[in-house]
Amino acid sequence: MRAEHAAGVRHFELGSFLPADRFPQFADLRDLLDAAASMKAMHKIVLALNERGIDDAIASDTDEITCVVSATDEHSLANSRRTRQQAVALVRKAAEAARSSEHRPITNAGIAMAFGCSIAGQVDQSDVLRLAETCMAAGADMVSIADTVGYAGPRQVASLCDEMVKLCDDRPFCVHLHDTRGTGIANAAAALDHGARVLDGALGGLGGCPFAPGATGNVVFEDLVYLCERMGFETGIDLDRLSEARGIAKCALPDEPFFGALARSGPPLNLDWRAGAA
Amino acid sequence: MRAEHAAGVRHFELGSFLPADRFPQFADLRDLLDAAASMKAMHKIVLALNERGIDDAIASDTDEITCVVSATDEHSLANSRRTRQQAVALVRKAAEAARSSEHRPITNAGIAMAFGCSIAGQVDQSDVLRLAETCMAAGADMVSIADTVGYAGPRQVASLCDEMVKLCDDRPFCVHLHDTRGTGIANAAAALDHGARVLDGALGGLGGCPFAPGATGNVVFEDLVYLCERMGFETGIDLDRLSEARGIAKCALPDEPFFGALARSGPPLNLDWRAGAA
Repeated sequence: MRAEHAAGVRHFELGSFLPADRFPQFADLRDLLDAAASMKAMHKIVLALNERGIDDAIASDTDEITCVVSATDEHSLANSRRTRQQAVALVRKAAEAARSSEHRPITNAGIAMAFGCSIAGQVDQSDVLRLAETCMAAGADMVSIADTVGYAGPRQVASLCDEMVKLCDDRPFCVHLHDTRGTGIANAAAALDHGARVLDGALGGLGGCPFAPGATGNVVFEDLVYLCERMGFETGIDLDRLSEARGIAKCALPDEPFFGALARSGPPLNLDWRAGAA
Repeated sequence: MRAEHAAGVRHFELGSFLPADRFPQFADLRDLLDAAASMKAMHKIVLALNERGIDDAIASDTDEITCVVSATDEHSLANSRRTRQQAVALVRKAAEAARSSEHRPITNAGIAMAFGCSIAGQVDQSDVLRLAETCMAAGADMVSIADTVGYAGPRQVASLCDEMVKLCDDRPFCVHLHDTRGTGIANAAAALDHGARVLDGALGGLGGCPFAPGATGNVVFEDLVYLCERMGFETGIDLDRLSEARGIAKCALPDEPFFGALARSGPPLNLDWRAGAA
């Protein structure tokens, strides 16, 4: 995190408040929050997946609380034993608690399976938009549309982003992509071309999902940063220093596969690929 | 080739007529052409990089001859010891010979470094368009715009494709991409969205360039086929059988790295991802 921060990264999803005995990967979340608190201009995001998680998140020094709502009842029940309505109630609780808290973190409602569901299959765009509207009505400051299992294609992303732009007006929305089938960066490009300005990524494409064994991580952050710059969006991130951060993560996680094309080749050396470079 | 043909692939770039002692990788080109001649509806493409190559290509049973012209004089001289003008003269010779031959293959002028040059750096779009026009005036039936060193971003691809559509009118043009920096599939999506209907790919992203050590192969063919279908373009290719072809190639080339996300995950199982599927 320190190395990524030094590279210019300012938004971090640090983890989720879940019981440390069942989810040891999140056991050090409080340490991470403490460390982040001392870094300049940090935007600290935590996931809250139940009532207890919301309470813990509100009590901690966090800037954004993400709750997860599934686009389908089938996935919602399988993933969290809640209907979509119950999940929206949790968003409402988080938003209300956040607004009456001291730190006043923003609330982000992440719509999982927004581009297709591993259980229910096809997901109608109109259902996703209705759910996004419901989440905002429940108090969410921001909605994320998540391609949780990497089903999306770029035209589908473009179409949903166009509608999200209309729905969210001048509020930002987030696009959360997984490169499960090679379309991750293409979907990110489509999202950027169609009004999305907040995208998730993971260094080296690390990660997965504790609830979906075998799932791949988010779209590779290094490749995403390069894409943004190549498309004219300034990120404020130094790719050389980000590559150092990758090296540190690789040493710390020697058994994890690290993905990404930029790490093999580096950016073009004799061409102005950075945003605003010509 | 047989397995790919069985999967529905009909267009193959088989190799280049070059001296077998210096380029042993192309030594079996005649055998490949013979084998392809017995397969249904095959479109056989060969590269011709010099006068001798053109003569050999014309004398063989090929459907398309690709000549290479560089977008920059610097690369043209370094790559082929020819100026761009001399390279265009070779296109003219190929086109004239093709038209007066028995088989009448089409001539394709591939513009290398069309999105940036490893030697000269930035390449102006207007230079590429002027060169494309010159190649067509010299008799080329088709022009390929090639991102030889993987410098392109999707907006650059979109912009050049828009202009190529205008320039080529109802003639197809080809987009040749390398996924050197993670933008390959995003560039392909941009090309498809902006009028390109012919794209090159390589099974498993295999390959490179005998003249550019360290260069990566073309964009991964399996991922490209999936992208096309996901975007609504029918390919006529069976991805399961294409995956078998990948397996055969992997056995034959155990030391080569094979790329591609689809090979890890397969297409979505409970969603109609094929073009025209709903």
